[in-house]
Amino acid sequence: MLRDLKEAVLEANLLLVKEGLVRLTWGNVSGIDRESGLFVIKPSGVAYDDLTVDSLVVLDLDGAVVEGTLRPSSDTPTHRILYREFPEIGGITHTHSVKATMFSQAGIELPCFGTTHADHFYGTVPVVRELTPEEVGEDYETNTGRAIVECFRERGLDPLAMPACLQKYHAPFTWGKNAIDSVKNSVALEVCAEMAMGTWQLRPEVATLPAHLLDKHYFRKHGPGAYYGQGGK
Amino acid sequence: MLRDLKEAVLEANLLLVKEGLVRLTWGNVSGIDRESGLFVIKPSGVAYDDLTVDSLVVLDLDGAVVEGTLRPSSDTPTHRILYREFPEIGGITHTHSVKATMFSQAGIELPCFGTTHADHFYGTVPVVRELTPEEVGEDYETNTGRAIVECFRERGLDPLAMPACLQKYHAPFTWGKNAIDSVKNSVALEVCAEMAMGTWQLRPEVATLPAHLLDKHYFRKHGPGAYYGQGGK
Amino acid sequence: MLRDLKEAVLEANLLLVKEGLVRLTWGNVSGIDRESGLFVIKPSGVAYDDLTVDSLVVLDLDGAVVEGTLRPSSDTPTHRILYREFPEIGGITHTHSVKATMFSQAGIELPCFGTTHADHFYGTVPVVRELTPEEVGEDYETNTGRAIVECFRERGLDPLAMPACLQKYHAPFTWGKNAIDSVKNSVALEVCAEMAMGTWQLRPEVATLPAHLLDKHYFRKHGPGAYYGQGGK
Amino acid sequence: MLRDLKEAVLEANLLLVKEGLVRLTWGNVSGIDRESGLFVIKPSGVAYDDLTVDSLVVLDLDGAVVEGTLRPSSDTPTHRILYREFPEIGGITHTHSVKATMFSQAGIELPCFGTTHADHFYGTVPVVRELTPEEVGEDYETNTGRAIVECFRERGLDPLAMPACLQKYHAPFTWGKNAIDSVKNSVALEVCAEMAMGTWQLRPEVATLPAHLLDKHYFRKHGPGAYYGQGGK
Repeated sequence: MLRDLKEAVLEANLLLVKEGLVRLTWGNVSGIDRESGLFVIKPSGVAYDDLTVDSLVVLDLDGAVVEGTLRPSSDTPTHRILYREFPEIGGITHTHSVKATMFSQAGIELPCFGTTHADHFYGTVPVVRELTPEEVGEDYETNTGRAIVECFRERGLDPLAMPACLQKYHAPFTWGKNAIDSVKNSVALEVCAEMAMGTWQLRPEVATLPAHLLDKHYFRKHGPGAYYGQGGK
Repeated sequence: MLRDLKEAVLEANLLLVKEGLVRLTWGNVSGIDRESGLFVIKPSGVAYDDLTVDSLVVLDLDGAVVEGTLRPSSDTPTHRILYREFPEIGGITHTHSVKATMFSQAGIELPCFGTTHADHFYGTVPVVRELTPEEVGEDYETNTGRAIVECFRERGLDPLAMPACLQKYHAPFTWGKNAIDSVKNSVALEVCAEMAMGTWQLRPEVATLPAHLLDKHYFRKHGPGAYYGQGGK
Repeated sequence: MLRDLKEAVLEANLLLVKEGLVRLTWGNVSGIDRESGLFVIKPSGVAYDDLTVDSLVVLDLDGAVVEGTLRPSSDTPTHRILYREFPEIGGITHTHSVKATMFSQAGIELPCFGTTHADHFYGTVPVVRELTPEEVGEDYETNTGRAIVECFRERGLDPLAMPACLQKYHAPFTWGKNAIDSVKNSVALEVCAEMAMGTWQLRPEVATLPAHLLDKHYFRKHGPGAYYGQGGK
Repeated sequence: MLRDLKEAVLEANLLLVKEGLVRLTWGNVSGIDRESGLFVIKPSGVAYDDLTVDSLVVLDLDGAVVEGTLRPSSDTPTHRILYREFPEIGGITHTHSVKATMFSQAGIELPCFGTTHADHFYGTVPVVRELTPEEVGEDYETNTGRAIVECFRERGLDPLAMPACLQKYHAPFTWGKNAIDSVKNSVALEVCAEMAMGTWQLRPEVATLPAHLLDKHYFRKHGPGAYYGQGGK
């Protein structure tokens, strides 16, 4: 079932390790098949070295396990909500990557200070509010997804133009057109977080990227006028 | 003798290298067989590349070498005291991992700033006081273990809920259910120390994790209600 | 066509990865054959693992593709301008290497604080001004090259004695006698940027390298009196 | 000639790369055979991947090349002076390792903040003064060695108890009983420099290690009462 998607999700999970974004088992990637409405996710607490296509878990958008003998990632309910509420996305990555997590812990949004950021994120990466004791007590991971969606609705953010958020006290979530794309956005978020910290160290009062440069860099990689890469060739 | 335990202790020592927690020979892992009361530890000053199952040293809880031709780690008396006084632990790791050692050198406790920390350590990681000239002069490594135990007794800390400490002027010790588990706690401590430094850099007056989130994250991985990983499946 | 140059450019692109200067596809190296006036560059958005000699693109100095089926790097017009205006250079590297990019984002020039810097760059590495909305709107990458050339003309900088610049809000460009040499300057720039940040952290009011040491180190590696390496042997 | 020494020097140069202390060709290790008064050193500007036993250069203590077709490291005269003036040492390492070089550039001595430092260096690692224009102009590298010796004589430092120095504006030199030992001291210096910077960041007014702990840690690894490692077993 969903062999191609499973292979893509496995490759994406392993890319997470190769890119140095996870230690131990602190991360997970999923991908969805929109036609069937099924998504594939890493099993919980399994070492990346032991991960195989057959160990992945398939679920539907109500959260029912459709295939797989292992328990899915404990963050599965968060993925499920994001797939339901952001129908344009095809893959989701969660990590505790060090620099982005510093922003989550400090509760500080990640401003756009340069073109590396603008190439991937159209503006400031938001911090999603912490959950209330009630939200934590009952269905914590589902409520994490709901808080992310609430944040994007309130700010009018387009999930594909801003494929990342920083969960307060926790860590980042990123997403994208597919599983691999969501991991690439995870890499970009981590690097931009590191660059931002150094930029502030060098010049505490630094200005964000001017709007004309943000537009130029974002749109040369994304949308109908994009000319970066081999798309359309 | 204790073949399985030796293999686990060897694997744990090598994981320490793979995870980047040791340079040269600055670290050691041990594991104990509670039934026989014997523990297995790395020999002193031996390069990790040269480590074999047969080079490991077996000792009893009085500190007598039971098997092995090499001298055990110079930190062996510290391990011995911890095994005697913390009967619930099964493995111990000592490193000079860079970020955690900065906290030891500065004598600053590691607060819980996020869920990465809460997943492993139930609250603030304590600093264990420096030894007096008398304690250093006579049986230094044994007294190091005693000071750790004293710190945990005074603060009423449960060694399994707080499987780490920062020895003042020295470096961290971590422990766990077994040898591998103690290394994983060493990884977690190092990453949490790095994250804490960046969190302070971003927001010097940052608050620690609210209690309801600390409880949620700690107990979803530990204890009877845990649902992270494949335990009980 | 230009087989040797293509192999050198491929090797230089892969060295960029080996030296840890690029993540994902954020970088490109080119090299020029001055006799024919043709230069070879990485294709746009192609993963380094998939790069082959045959995937490289050959262009002339008017920007026309002479050989290759893939779209050249989106930064190709910048390379083209630099080759036209700096006839002494033979290779160009562009990266978003983390520490140098922090200086670009902060708009802060990189001073010479030690002999590591003096071995490669004869003085302060300049920041090239940001482009105006008009320059960004029309032929952005060509105007990036023009701004670099303008900066070097205004300051009277010799491109071989100062084989690097920091594009404001963007990232560094480096160059050299050939493709590999331009990558080595990229490595040097990244390391010197990191060292400078730490030097400022240790001593905010630190002085730059005295002139007699700058001259000594630069000229023992460069020019007719050089005695570093095996040149002339 | 000196086959064993050459192999040890080759191994030590490669360890420098493995330990991440050099980029490109910025480092060199030598070792001496005290009986013959000959020392073996890396050739200048040769890539570490291309280094072989036969590419190493053999010199006598007057600086004459005794064997080898390549030009020796440009820092050879510094090594020569140190071997002449510090007869107790058997190997020397020079690197531009990042964290130690920050201290050199800032001209700030490296205090002993913990036991990692005390295990290798008996007290504060000194900064060696910058050279005068005259000393730089005439026989620069020899005068670098002389300034190091002058620093150690003036402060009454024992080169084996303090096997490192920070050359102002330049970078560290370390040494030891043999070539490998000098590389290990280079690793220790780099790690201690990094730890010191973080310790200051956490607690700017931090105190140095108390004397009784410095003595304990230094002497448990060095001298007649040492009990670390397998020495004497």
